Amino acid sequence: MQRQQLKVNASRLRSELERFAVFGKTENGGVTRLALSKEDRAVRDYFRTCCEELGMEVKIDDMGCMYAVLQGSEERPPVVTGSHLDTVKKGGRFDGVLGVVAGLEVVRTLVENKMKPKAPIVIANITNEEGARFEPSMMASGVLSGKFNKAEMLQKRDISGITFGEALHESGYEGDIRNRLAEAEAFVELHIEQGPILEQEGLSIGVVECVVGMVCYELTVWGDSNHAGTTPMRMRKDALFVANDLMQEIRTKLGRIDQDLVFTMGRMNVYPNIHTVIPNKVIFTLEARHKDPAIIKQVEDVIAGLHVEVEARKLWSRDTVWFDKDVCNAVQQATESCGYSYKRMVSGAGHDAQFLASYVPTAMIFVPSVNGKSHCEEEYTPWEACEKGVNVLLETIWQLSQ
Amino acid sequence: MQRQQLKVNASRLRSELERFAVFGKTENGGVTRLALSKEDRAVRDYFRTCCEELGMEVKIDDMGCMYAVLQGSEERPPVVTGSHLDTVKKGGRFDGVLGVVAGLEVVRTLVENKMKPKAPIVIANITNEEGARFEPSMMASGVLSGKFNKAEMLQKRDISGITFGEALHESGYEGDIRNRLAEAEAFVELHIEQGPILEQEGLSIGVVECVVGMVCYELTVWGDSNHAGTTPMRMRKDALFVANDLMQEIRTKLGRIDQDLVFTMGRMNVYPNIHTVIPNKVIFTLEARHKDPAIIKQVEDVIAGLHVEVEARKLWSRDTVWFDKDVCNAVQQATESCGYSYKRMVSGAGHDAQFLASYVPTAMIFVPSVNGKSHCEEEYTPWEACEKGVNVLLETIWQLSQ
Repeated sequence: MQRQQLKVNASRLRSELERFAVFGKTENGGVTRLALSKEDRAVRDYFRTCCEELGMEVKIDDMGCMYAVLQGSEERPPVVTGSHLDTVKKGGRFDGVLGVVAGLEVVRTLVENKMKPKAPIVIANITNEEGARFEPSMMASGVLSGKFNKAEMLQKRDISGITFGEALHESGYEGDIRNRLAEAEAFVELHIEQGPILEQEGLSIGVVECVVGMVCYELTVWGDSNHAGTTPMRMRKDALFVANDLMQEIRTKLGRIDQDLVFTMGRMNVYPNIHTVIPNKVIFTLEARHKDPAIIKQVEDVIAGLHVEVEARKLWSRDTVWFDKDVCNAVQQATESCGYSYKRMVSGAGHDAQFLASYVPTAMIFVPSVNGKSHCEEEYTPWEACEKGVNVLLETIWQLSQ
Repeated sequence: MQRQQLKVNASRLRSELERFAVFGKTENGGVTRLALSKEDRAVRDYFRTCCEELGMEVKIDDMGCMYAVLQGSEERPPVVTGSHLDTVKKGGRFDGVLGVVAGLEVVRTLVENKMKPKAPIVIANITNEEGARFEPSMMASGVLSGKFNKAEMLQKRDISGITFGEALHESGYEGDIRNRLAEAEAFVELHIEQGPILEQEGLSIGVVECVVGMVCYELTVWGDSNHAGTTPMRMRKDALFVANDLMQEIRTKLGRIDQDLVFTMGRMNVYPNIHTVIPNKVIFTLEARHKDPAIIKQVEDVIAGLHVEVEARKLWSRDTVWFDKDVCNAVQQATESCGYSYKRMVSGAGHDAQFLASYVPTAMIFVPSVNGKSHCEEEYTPWEACEKGVNVLLETIWQLSQ
């Protein structure tokens, strides 16, 4: 059997994805599996069993991350894959779990073909990527990479007042700090795109080069609240009219900068928000993302130069995280040797990979999201599209482990 | 003493307005006196005492409205003035109460000058004009005029679950249906303008010809919710962008119709209202007011002909209520004989007078509102401006009662 023709078992992959989707399944075909919930614990137990049946040792670190280790023939740092098993509330069957089940299918394929890697292979399940129960998102990878303070994270509470530390302890998945992901040859995460590009362009694989940088502002404009019936138009200062003009200006100016720039005014509140009262205040967010910091700088220049009186408060920003060139190239070569269509692209969404990239050579593989939907019950990636992604992962992992 | 030079007592008027403002006064110089609240009952008791000291008989009807009657020398239907003593939460010291205290000052002036009117003079305090505790506003005048069903109104509940009927009963101001305001020669209500026109134009008195008609729509537009980071601009349908364009179109088209048309988009909600999610729905109200039904029709034509896919739901409308020509002219003549500047104008806000006008010849007198503010603690009308309004009321009432 020629190595480059080795492929994963498509029907086993599908049935395993369907099996994982049972843990926390919703009425409308989605999944609610919040971090360290009963459902999350159940899926972790099942994942552990699957790994142990393959002869893998499962280690747990102090943030609850799971690492299933397939021994290599050499004493080397491991090649790591995986993603996360938690979901948002009423999320989908693919976001996160695909990357973990893919790792399982890669190891199953290697084991049944009696292909022993030189480097160990690790399948990781990183705790609380979504941040849907305990904010912030990417909590555990943030701690592993030193971006977040562990003691602070342990004190984060869910809406019922339970701390992350309590939930972790109670889950039975509080492990040893010595098991944390440390030195590794590479981390490769397969994930759904969560956007429409691959589907629209008819491509199978995204070779992800970076997670784009972003900036988020909160903009406030003012008016004079007065009675909607008694104040002539010429004597008004309607905050919503001000905001309306401001948004037009923002759309026009940002729309000219670069076609890959995305910007969103997702949250907007009008005050006092009564139909018979002229608004006196409007607050809205403006977030923009692009891989090039010079473009983000242009966005900030536009905000600084707006033509109306506006209070612009920067809520946060993050720099673009570039993935490792060699690992990206390994993904691209694997894709080519599989014969799949692809493009090199960026990730507009955040992933654990962006934190792990600070100390492990990292890259990501994207597969298409139908209609670009994610974080919802309709989230879908066709089974054949998943299969192609896992084949690329198999080829990449095998190459890196040689 | 020449009759036309008879004037009210300015210092007594001011001190009485200040006295009434004590009932429910707020920390910042406003008033909270919700209908049939403890504060409202206290101010009613005080008002009753003031009237009885003038030799007036105070009658109460089945909706809690108070009528203080100064006997005339002839058996005739009365000339009625007054307004309401309830306020909104954190309202001002003038809205409503000015018209009641004005009536008191008119009668005091007549009594101390031993001027006996031919027709009886009635000072009315109409229950629950604001609707701030029990919706709808203008509740009692709505029942008196047959616009609202009394049994329904009695069942209206405040936020603590108490019905209007229970509150009325408990207040001690549940009177006899036979005391309702029936036949009358005229109803004249003095009120603050609640808008900026008189102040801006440097005028003392508004002779109010009508309460303008209005229409209120709720407009809904849709988009596709997607991840703000992963969806290129060209593949988006952002509901906020749709709403933004729609509002521009509405502002442009309505702005051209007539300079006296007022329109407001006071309530607007964006869904899901999360900064990282492209909005999939925006709902906002559009209300417009004008005295000419043909203008309101043009507004509705604009809404029907908007250039984007929008669901337009008519929430309600009301027709313009024209006041009685003779009573308006009486107000105008009184203003001229006082030598005050004035204009004939419309009321953009609703008043009990618009309901009573359906069976009593009615008109209103406006005095300026500083900065057009009302329904807030800053609500203010200078004392001399109040005095002028009461002088006009005195002259009007005296003439009508002869």
